[in-house]
Amino acid sequence: MSERPSKQVKVPPTTVQRLPLYLRCLIQAQARRMPVVNSVQIADMAGTNAAQVRKDFSYLGEFGTRGVGYDVDSLIANLTKRLGVAEHRRVAIIGFGRLGSALQGYAGFEERGMSVAAVLDADSSKVGTSVDGVVIESIDDLEEVIERERIEIAVLTVPAGAAQGIANRLIAAGVKAIMNFAPVRLVVPDDVTVRQADMAGELQILSFHLNPGSPAE
Amino acid sequence: MSERPSKQVKVPPTTVQRLPLYLRCLIQAQARRMPVVNSVQIADMAGTNAAQVRKDFSYLGEFGTRGVGYDVDSLIANLTKRLGVAEHRRVAIIGFGRLGSALQGYAGFEERGMSVAAVLDADSSKVGTSVDGVVIESIDDLEEVIERERIEIAVLTVPAGAAQGIANRLIAAGVKAIMNFAPVRLVVPDDVTVRQADMAGELQILSFHLNPGSPAE
Repeated sequence: MSERPSKQVKVPPTTVQRLPLYLRCLIQAQARRMPVVNSVQIADMAGTNAAQVRKDFSYLGEFGTRGVGYDVDSLIANLTKRLGVAEHRRVAIIGFGRLGSALQGYAGFEERGMSVAAVLDADSSKVGTSVDGVVIESIDDLEEVIERERIEIAVLTVPAGAAQGIANRLIAAGVKAIMNFAPVRLVVPDDVTVRQADMAGELQILSFHLNPGSPAE
Repeated sequence: MSERPSKQVKVPPTTVQRLPLYLRCLIQAQARRMPVVNSVQIADMAGTNAAQVRKDFSYLGEFGTRGVGYDVDSLIANLTKRLGVAEHRRVAIIGFGRLGSALQGYAGFEERGMSVAAVLDADSSKVGTSVDGVVIESIDDLEEVIERERIEIAVLTVPAGAAQGIANRLIAAGVKAIMNFAPVRLVVPDDVTVRQADMAGELQILSFHLNPGSPAE
């Protein structure tokens, strides 16, 4: 007899990308007091198809019960654990311009397992001021703040020219996950994950679909 | 003899997602006065691999010259055309809160083929005020503004509860492309493309990779 090695299965990146959406849908189902959902229902909520849902969940060791579906509570628990948000992740926002300010004020983070524990900026006129209970600290003190606040994820909303230098400092301070809003590709070691936000690129993808002969996604 | 039907080839969604990044890399190459680039060089700049680059470009009818590479200028022209940004796309930002304000002030849009032609908000204290030469208009006048400004892409930064209603009005007014920052899945007709931004979801994906046994992407 062999144990099912669900924890060792490598989850493909495209599946990982859908996990936050699935979790959101399942929490909706829970709020609607649905104890069980099937793959068709989840697919409807997530805007994908049932076969995809079943395949994605199989990577998490979730196979549901034939003719019944998936237990909502236990699937939420599994996804929450896999996404590592059972306890809140501690996040620092580096750069408190308009975008940094918008992100800092975003209620969705707290609801979804993220705590903005630090905000840093290079502008001395901002340093020391308080926003929603978080005092803006100087980027000069980055290493100290990362350690003190046990920051796990850094959100970079700094000018393009400053991004790589700050990323290097974050990595040296032990940060392994960076969300980069600066329009520049960061070079990082293999054990660091970067997600690149690209607002203009998102609009270009929409624009692609506006061309004749390019069907909507 | 058959003509190569490059324009009719359906470009896979995952390839479409990479086109803005390729275009950005090629413009960098052009700025560095590189007349020709090969797939290895592009892959290095884009953070992917050369086989992927060649495959992606083949969908655009670009096969390069063996042992030489791709002509940078003509590849930029092709990508710009395929992405539909040879002429600027006219964009409306709906909702001028902190995020709407950050997006409105984002210089990267203009550089990459997007013109923010209108900003709308429901708050009468904001309506009539001017930001960077654009006067904020009332969401009550949405249909009129969309038509007058020939808006092609709408960026929704409104509360979750308002998003679907506004999306319905946008679609009725002829908008076929929506970037949605509201944390709700929009239901739209098949000929409308929606891209869903999900900041908390992006951080959850990073969080997934922080778990032991989940290698960095």
